[in-house]
Amino acid sequence: MRYESTQQAMEALKKLQQTQKAYDHVLGVLYLDATTAAPGDTWEGRGKTMEIMSQITYDLLADPQNGELLSYLEEHARELDPQTKREAEVLGKNYRQLQRIPAEEYVAYSVLLNDAQNVWKKAKKEDDFPSFAPYLEKIVDYNRKFAGYYNPNVPPYDALLNEYEEGMCMETLDRFFRELRESLVPLIARVKAAEQIDDSFLHKHYPVEVQRKFSDYLMEVMGMDRSHCGIAETEHPYTTNFNNKDVRITTHYYEDNLVSSMFSVIHEGGHALYELGADDRYNYTALSGGVSMGIHESQSRFYENIIGRSPAFAHAIFPKVKEFFPEQLEGVEEEDFYRAINKAEPSLIRIEADELTYTLHIMVRYEIEKQLIAGTLAVCHVPREWKRLYREYLGVEVPNDTLGCLQDSHWSGGSFGYFPSYALGSAYGAQMLVKMQEDLGDIWADVARGDLSKVTGWLREHIHRHASFYKPGELFRSVCGEFDPKFYTDYLTEKYTRLYRL
Amino acid sequence: MRYESTQQAMEALKKLQQTQKAYDHVLGVLYLDATTAAPGDTWEGRGKTMEIMSQITYDLLADPQNGELLSYLEEHARELDPQTKREAEVLGKNYRQLQRIPAEEYVAYSVLLNDAQNVWKKAKKEDDFPSFAPYLEKIVDYNRKFAGYYNPNVPPYDALLNEYEEGMCMETLDRFFRELRESLVPLIARVKAAEQIDDSFLHKHYPVEVQRKFSDYLMEVMGMDRSHCGIAETEHPYTTNFNNKDVRITTHYYEDNLVSSMFSVIHEGGHALYELGADDRYNYTALSGGVSMGIHESQSRFYENIIGRSPAFAHAIFPKVKEFFPEQLEGVEEEDFYRAINKAEPSLIRIEADELTYTLHIMVRYEIEKQLIAGTLAVCHVPREWKRLYREYLGVEVPNDTLGCLQDSHWSGGSFGYFPSYALGSAYGAQMLVKMQEDLGDIWADVARGDLSKVTGWLREHIHRHASFYKPGELFRSVCGEFDPKFYTDYLTEKYTRLYRL
Repeated sequence: MRYESTQQAMEALKKLQQTQKAYDHVLGVLYLDATTAAPGDTWEGRGKTMEIMSQITYDLLADPQNGELLSYLEEHARELDPQTKREAEVLGKNYRQLQRIPAEEYVAYSVLLNDAQNVWKKAKKEDDFPSFAPYLEKIVDYNRKFAGYYNPNVPPYDALLNEYEEGMCMETLDRFFRELRESLVPLIARVKAAEQIDDSFLHKHYPVEVQRKFSDYLMEVMGMDRSHCGIAETEHPYTTNFNNKDVRITTHYYEDNLVSSMFSVIHEGGHALYELGADDRYNYTALSGGVSMGIHESQSRFYENIIGRSPAFAHAIFPKVKEFFPEQLEGVEEEDFYRAINKAEPSLIRIEADELTYTLHIMVRYEIEKQLIAGTLAVCHVPREWKRLYREYLGVEVPNDTLGCLQDSHWSGGSFGYFPSYALGSAYGAQMLVKMQEDLGDIWADVARGDLSKVTGWLREHIHRHASFYKPGELFRSVCGEFDPKFYTDYLTEKYTRLYRL
Repeated sequence: MRYESTQQAMEALKKLQQTQKAYDHVLGVLYLDATTAAPGDTWEGRGKTMEIMSQITYDLLADPQNGELLSYLEEHARELDPQTKREAEVLGKNYRQLQRIPAEEYVAYSVLLNDAQNVWKKAKKEDDFPSFAPYLEKIVDYNRKFAGYYNPNVPPYDALLNEYEEGMCMETLDRFFRELRESLVPLIARVKAAEQIDDSFLHKHYPVEVQRKFSDYLMEVMGMDRSHCGIAETEHPYTTNFNNKDVRITTHYYEDNLVSSMFSVIHEGGHALYELGADDRYNYTALSGGVSMGIHESQSRFYENIIGRSPAFAHAIFPKVKEFFPEQLEGVEEEDFYRAINKAEPSLIRIEADELTYTLHIMVRYEIEKQLIAGTLAVCHVPREWKRLYREYLGVEVPNDTLGCLQDSHWSGGSFGYFPSYALGSAYGAQMLVKMQEDLGDIWADVARGDLSKVTGWLREHIHRHASFYKPGELFRSVCGEFDPKFYTDYLTEKYTRLYRL
């Protein structure tokens, strides 16, 4: 054993994590630059740098010395404080996983994904699923194989789900989605039959310069500390964080759409508040940052939908919205605005879907992924299955694969098991709302005054500050008890029944 | 010897350089982010990442295996192609230099510079030279010591000059600055006595949004490929390059000043064209990028002053300038514009100095650095010497140290020997102009049409494409013959005699 004391091993662990975080930081900035500022034709050099850096970070973790270190710490687990113990556990998991994947498969898979990304982009543009199918087949094969490396004792798709939401499995998700389906599909049918909401005023001309100032205002209402959180513009909005004092969100402005960027800012703002709220003690460790995709989406979708699309929030911001856009919103009342930002309508594109129909888009993807990974659906039949499920769940006809199974980048990026997190996050949020109101009493009077401090304070106390210290299921249960999708279906049923006067 | 063949050693050399360039890239992007986009209070985390990355890049070069590699290549120099030979030479120089500086001194110096930077900022703000003096003393001591490590066989300041301009020495610079002084000091006195130029219209209100579009126009006139060159905004303009296909310039807009950003864009554009024009073969090697500060400034100041402040260029862009700013420039004629952008006036601040007086600012710094490093001037007497020299060379009274010896960041950053490059670059450019016209004939008709393709083509052919393959002196001589400051003093004398109708 090369460690002379637990103290020495803990220092080595600390150094390893700090180094990893430094690489995460520079790679994150490289990506931020690529998507926000880099000139169009600069991919080649960046690709080279990323390739070299990826190899270095792979080697950094795969170093057999880490195996020794992590074994030593495991053997001395009883001498470790809880944080260090959990750090070693997380790193140990990552290390063993990397060890299990043969290096040549890891490299071949990286190359495949890189090619697949380009092929997918072209296929999407040209509505040409067959050109993408051979790549998707290989990606599915790799994922089935990797699932066996991750955990050979569970069905492959469970092993993949566990990568994005530790502890998640098909049994839970099947029940979850079944309940959603049973309650939402008929609700959506009733909404479709009801009198439709006019949201045409949201699609007048909204100049980008004014929308930029509007974003600043929204971030202010959300109570975001701008000295630690920047905003930039990208094709697709996202949030990235380098540590709990340096978080960036992005948005995309459309001049014919007021709400696209508005809700991107609030959604990404929710992710950012989660990262900004982490306790300093987790900085530069494997426990920094949000714990899972599901918990992350619970925060972003909480702010976006539960708060951002509430009557109280609409009341709080509407006077200011009218100040920013007096001509566009002439004659529009607060109630019109509230109803318009909540308009629900089954549609084809996930990322443009409203709060009510969104999870059904996820359900389609879940069903298909499950079958692909189980080997019960051939890749060539994905378009057919996609169309069938959209008809069944959303009642819409998918005219082509560009607007169908080629719309998302997740599969070409190798992310199988990721989609369910979006739906889970929405449902987690609804259950948190109930718990929050048990603790705080009515929150809506504050929200209606544009004061989110109590809401954010509660989330910080129960979720944000813990970063990745607890496993996602543990964290959720410690706050809300057992996960129950009924909170979410009740929330949607009540909201949309009232909104559409059903 | 662990290398089995020259081929194997060359591959190791290539890999080392590519890895170094990847780190340069990510650290460059980190700096770009810090200065353009990062929220205000995010320095702590970035500092930690930079500290870790600096140590890693230090270790990368200092690795004793590199010593073996470089010795092997030196022994087999005759088997190497000229490029590889030069790569090994450059890396060998860097490696040996790093070996000579004891690691603990390197670290202590880094810590000192970091502290000094903060102390200097505060001292500048509060006009408090004495608080900065102890730091400057230590920095001077370190530089004298390091000079001995770099080259113990020459006077220390020569060793430092050589770091920024390989082959440069005090003998050359003393002659250079003497000639400048003898011809410029009386010329400036005559300009001061002549009728002054009215440039008040350049200080009307120039909105930033329009200035941004004006920058795009200037970059277009300069023939810059925007798919490989971005522009951003920073407190102080600069240029950075990640490879010859990814270059970024920055500028700073002042709403009460049209020309500050205009000439920043043209100046940084000159640096960028140099980087963009490098031959692909030098990418990801130690020979990528401009060869020295002096040659770099020769390009930036060539575009900024020789081209950008020429009557022909003023003629080319003036109609468009009036289109951008019709109200501000009402009644202003092309000749007024040309004269205004060339107004010369002895002043206190180097970075705001005009073309004529700029090199005298450098000369002050050169004289002081020379004495500090020689040990013939005590740090506590710098303010007095600064004031004396400004009076002697520029005829201006320096009212305090904020506007005097505390104005620049170079000394607190440890850059002794850097300043002369600015003056050298200006003089190199004037000599290149003569050579260019010998080769191309009159260039001004093209420039007057806004066509810089021949000018840039000549510079690309003779300077840009070679990146760092030739040493700066070698490169300059191969194009222009022996360096002679008379070209520069003649150029300035002729230009300002005509401009001020002396």
